[in-house]
Amino acid sequence: MLHFRPLFVLLSSACLGLLGPTSVFGQGRPVGKAPKVVVQDDGTVEVPAQTVPMSFMKGYLARDYELFAVEKKDEQIGGIHAYVYTPKAGVSARNKDRVLINLHGGGFSGCWPGCAELESIPVSALGQIEVVSVDYREGPDYKFPAASEDVASVYQELLKTHQPKDIGIYGCSAGGIQTAMSIAWFQRHGLPAPGAIGIFCASAGGVFGGDASYTAVPIGEARMPLPINPGAPPPLSYFSGTDPKDPLAAPISAPEVLAKFPPTLMITGTRGFELSAALYTHEQLVKAGVDTELHVWEGLFHGFFYNSDVPESRDALNVIVRFFDRHLGNMVDSGHVSAADAKAGSAAQP
Amino acid sequence: MLHFRPLFVLLSSACLGLLGPTSVFGQGRPVGKAPKVVVQDDGTVEVPAQTVPMSFMKGYLARDYELFAVEKKDEQIGGIHAYVYTPKAGVSARNKDRVLINLHGGGFSGCWPGCAELESIPVSALGQIEVVSVDYREGPDYKFPAASEDVASVYQELLKTHQPKDIGIYGCSAGGIQTAMSIAWFQRHGLPAPGAIGIFCASAGGVFGGDASYTAVPIGEARMPLPINPGAPPPLSYFSGTDPKDPLAAPISAPEVLAKFPPTLMITGTRGFELSAALYTHEQLVKAGVDTELHVWEGLFHGFFYNSDVPESRDALNVIVRFFDRHLGNMVDSGHVSAADAKAGSAAQP
Repeated sequence: MLHFRPLFVLLSSACLGLLGPTSVFGQGRPVGKAPKVVVQDDGTVEVPAQTVPMSFMKGYLARDYELFAVEKKDEQIGGIHAYVYTPKAGVSARNKDRVLINLHGGGFSGCWPGCAELESIPVSALGQIEVVSVDYREGPDYKFPAASEDVASVYQELLKTHQPKDIGIYGCSAGGIQTAMSIAWFQRHGLPAPGAIGIFCASAGGVFGGDASYTAVPIGEARMPLPINPGAPPPLSYFSGTDPKDPLAAPISAPEVLAKFPPTLMITGTRGFELSAALYTHEQLVKAGVDTELHVWEGLFHGFFYNSDVPESRDALNVIVRFFDRHLGNMVDSGHVSAADAKAGSAAQP
Repeated sequence: MLHFRPLFVLLSSACLGLLGPTSVFGQGRPVGKAPKVVVQDDGTVEVPAQTVPMSFMKGYLARDYELFAVEKKDEQIGGIHAYVYTPKAGVSARNKDRVLINLHGGGFSGCWPGCAELESIPVSALGQIEVVSVDYREGPDYKFPAASEDVASVYQELLKTHQPKDIGIYGCSAGGIQTAMSIAWFQRHGLPAPGAIGIFCASAGGVFGGDASYTAVPIGEARMPLPINPGAPPPLSYFSGTDPKDPLAAPISAPEVLAKFPPTLMITGTRGFELSAALYTHEQLVKAGVDTELHVWEGLFHGFFYNSDVPESRDALNVIVRFFDRHLGNMVDSGHVSAADAKAGSAAQP
């Protein structure tokens, strides 16, 4: 028996990290008919000839370099590889004690440094703030919780020179999920919560399921096959063997974990495959009493703001910059341990 | 030539006010095949026999009466018919100087008092606050701006005994649109902005168009035919002859009007036909610098909270009550005229 499947099905697991930008690419351009891939009975895969356009990401990066003037330093922070971005125009007076940690998208399996650059450069330049983008460990070489450990190492190092209320964490797609996962990890390991976080193009556990499984494919994410069964975990090797309800991997499973989240900004769009998961996370954070702010862009798709020429990208970036400006530096509630305690490594999260 | 059309097409204009609750009814129940209506060449309409279930609204109202203890008074306020609801448990100390004005849904063509009751009773009881629900003039007997005039009459009367910062206005569907329209009307007529408003199941101009035209039909509003052309105005006689860009009818058309909106709560759901219009309004309010809060319930539909037994209805009601509690009574910015000026009828909006 022969199996005919469109090419993208076979590529989906490996390319998950590129799906956001792939969607951007798909907007308004005819992408042609996907060539048919034939799987023979003996397992041989026959891929027909095709022409692959230049990576969209190169174009996006070139535009960001034109639009946003930043300095980039290649550093090790707490033993973890990272890029540190500072605006060429200088860090603003309000932000001199503040720093943002960016956790890049890429499906826990790639997109360093492309996604990291696209998420960090505009925020550093427009926000006049330092951004540390973390080259955290990913699949298939590493498994959960390697990324959480790496983020915690960077965070603990930054806590030596910053107060928790002056540190923000954000990311898109896998980086948005990892942002939420990091908060759960900090709670478990007695680290204080940062001043504010941003969960973009993502949720506090998974990105699939819900109405978006039925709507995002036809209207915006047609190149991506979505699992319709909401219970089906995404096919990411990084999470293989992980309990999908483990609050460290899916904080959405644990209301008591969500209740201790810092102020949280959520960004999604009606064509993002993560729409439903993001909305559900927002609802649950609101129910848990967390100061949460939701923005849903009509007609826009997974990771739309990777493309700085999408007009709404600037609106989204402004929302991000203003959110952190408003929330960083505020008093941290007394339920969280102090930075000094966290550094000593002996404090338990109440 | 004979024309065959499903019944709901013929009923859609007249029943627009019931579509929200109709959608509630449609959830999880097989509604059967719509009987075929035949329109003869001479204009005769032949409607076949059918069985119509009891109005869902009667059931919803019965549940609200069970769940929420309120007193209702039938009054004339500023010459306009209204119901005034107060919680039987009493108005809370925080709310003793405050009042909410409810503008009911119903497609500007009906649903008084059913929709008014469903929107006012739970908010009054849960919020421990007085709610004035306005029986504003509607189509087909009246046309725009009759409703805006009526709301302004009630508001001006309430301003004799309340400060603007202590008055909130909210509504669902047509009532949500009328809430936004009222703010534009107040600006034009030198009335101060109220302390906060709620635009639910609606936008600041129209409820159709955008991605929701393609997604809400198949997943939640299948009994409703949606105009796919975003430019097409809804077929409401109330607006016949009105310029669809008139800021008094569609404040979304005028950024300078939006910029002077008070703090605004927006509520919608992924299955609401108004989803896209609501999200677009939220984006534009944010860009205009308005303090705006968005909540989008995953999997829920136009006016879902009319049914108090939908679990998320209580969440939505809590969001509404907390929003007004947080925003009413705050200082109004100096750009708005004082209540005294407004009463004198001589102040111009800056």
